[in-house]
Amino acid sequence: MATLKDVAERAGVTVTTVSRMLNNKVCVSEKTRSRIQAAMNELGYHPNDFARSLSKKSSNFIGLIVPMADHAFFNSVIASVERHASERGLKLLLCVSNHAFEKEKEFIHMLLSNKVQGIILASHTEGIDEFESIDAPLITLDRIVNTRIPAVCADNYHGGKLAGRHLIERGCQKLVYISDTPIPYMEASKRYLGFCDACAQAGVDRPPEVIAADNQFCQMDYHKTIEKVFAEHPDVDGIFTSNDIIAAQVIQYCHKHQIAIPDQLKLVGYDNSQLASMCSPPLTAIHQPIDDICNYAVASIVQASKGYLNPSQAVFPVTLVERETT
Amino acid sequence: MATLKDVAERAGVTVTTVSRMLNNKVCVSEKTRSRIQAAMNELGYHPNDFARSLSKKSSNFIGLIVPMADHAFFNSVIASVERHASERGLKLLLCVSNHAFEKEKEFIHMLLSNKVQGIILASHTEGIDEFESIDAPLITLDRIVNTRIPAVCADNYHGGKLAGRHLIERGCQKLVYISDTPIPYMEASKRYLGFCDACAQAGVDRPPEVIAADNQFCQMDYHKTIEKVFAEHPDVDGIFTSNDIIAAQVIQYCHKHQIAIPDQLKLVGYDNSQLASMCSPPLTAIHQPIDDICNYAVASIVQASKGYLNPSQAVFPVTLVERETT
Repeated sequence: MATLKDVAERAGVTVTTVSRMLNNKVCVSEKTRSRIQAAMNELGYHPNDFARSLSKKSSNFIGLIVPMADHAFFNSVIASVERHASERGLKLLLCVSNHAFEKEKEFIHMLLSNKVQGIILASHTEGIDEFESIDAPLITLDRIVNTRIPAVCADNYHGGKLAGRHLIERGCQKLVYISDTPIPYMEASKRYLGFCDACAQAGVDRPPEVIAADNQFCQMDYHKTIEKVFAEHPDVDGIFTSNDIIAAQVIQYCHKHQIAIPDQLKLVGYDNSQLASMCSPPLTAIHQPIDDICNYAVASIVQASKGYLNPSQAVFPVTLVERETT
Repeated sequence: MATLKDVAERAGVTVTTVSRMLNNKVCVSEKTRSRIQAAMNELGYHPNDFARSLSKKSSNFIGLIVPMADHAFFNSVIASVERHASERGLKLLLCVSNHAFEKEKEFIHMLLSNKVQGIILASHTEGIDEFESIDAPLITLDRIVNTRIPAVCADNYHGGKLAGRHLIERGCQKLVYISDTPIPYMEASKRYLGFCDACAQAGVDRPPEVIAADNQFCQMDYHKTIEKVFAEHPDVDGIFTSNDIIAAQVIQYCHKHQIAIPDQLKLVGYDNSQLASMCSPPLTAIHQPIDDICNYAVASIVQASKGYLNPSQAVFPVTLVERETT
């Protein structure tokens, strides 16, 4: 295997110069740089990032822990975090917890062992208090645990309010909210509060909340819950769902039972994931600025690793994207 | 920061014993192990994986390069590779190339610098020949470059044949194939060959292939291509698409133009991603065993890193999953 010395010889420079370039010092000219790069390519030399990280306090890895990867929302989070990390020269270590706290704990230990620059935690956070003293920047995404662990999320309350106002403006009077099982610390539960407040302000009946069973979130199959909604609320004329997947399945139910959307039933989803635009008819949905949220999360890790203090909480605005279900 | 010595003292064992446990040597009893673990937790000690990797030839990272992360097929690939890597104690470094060969090259250098155990390449592979001599196991996923770089893919030819046979069995006579722009080395182009052969064997007209423009793949918007299909082939009664996303948009077109599925038009998608079951009506699709393919890819990296020879090509069977569009 080629060594640093071989590269220096082939490029006709000193070992110090090669080392300077590898450490991104500015005092190496463009011409010398390209000569060294050519020598490295010819010899198949790859600098050992491990050895270089040893001499620093942290590596250029960033850790992301999500509960699942095969899910519209988390899929967007993964894509966004990778993009923003990569733009900053960071490499993404992706960890999927499958909703298991033990697995999360293992991942956090693993990430710390690899001296990550920081950790973005978008997975469940039961017992996260254990991790308050970890010596790497940590930020939670879409959940607020306590004021000591910085968090970034979208304005869930306002999202619920926008959905409620829009359905009422379109003439709905009998509204229902369908949601996943609430998870401790999850900011998403505020969507229902905003939805109810929009109804109260317009003098519309308080909408019931129909909650899907625990396993339906993991399996992404909400059909039983949807059947229950139509059985218990036969006069429903407007539905707001806590994610686009539930909404897509409401469309499937209506297609099967010949309920015309939007004539007989109006529908608003949440997240505005790709799925929203792929439905027939395309789904009106509350848009979370996932890309901006993820950019913020990565940037805040970089800031914190430089010793800057970050806000303990950052809330991003949401918008309503109107399509053909309302 | 706590050291190995601190952990040994707190656990009442020698430094050698702690070191043995960290290196997964078998000669440490369960009881001692848990005592050491407890001491590590109490002291907040995280073994330095970097330092440990230095003394080995490779780290326990595995690299995955995909062209995009925000796409049904690659999303499943990411989720599967992470799961199978994690089960084997490997950590996933996720790289997204955005279809740029220069970016791919950079990622490969980065991964080699990090002494990855191997690389799974599911991104475009123009100029991959440059990488034949890299000194880490490499496997391409869903594309076959040459016999010297191992490849794993699904049986695309048979997938096309299954789709053709099924549509003909359901009574279709005027078939059309809608596909993405063909990419060099992509195995997916064999789907059309299988589809044509099924037609020839049944005495049905050879189906035209309508190819979407380049940018439609990245933007996942195929509406223009779909309009063209119906304009140029007004008597079409069966459509086969090269991915589920195109099929979902064919459903949208039919919904808008009141073409009844499956009565007036029958439709078969490809991949059998989550989107297939979320459509209204749910989509009949060719199922690629993505999870098995990814498991194989990870296993073959592990095998190769132990010095075993892998098949140069592994082809997995596909099946047809019947839903409500046929």
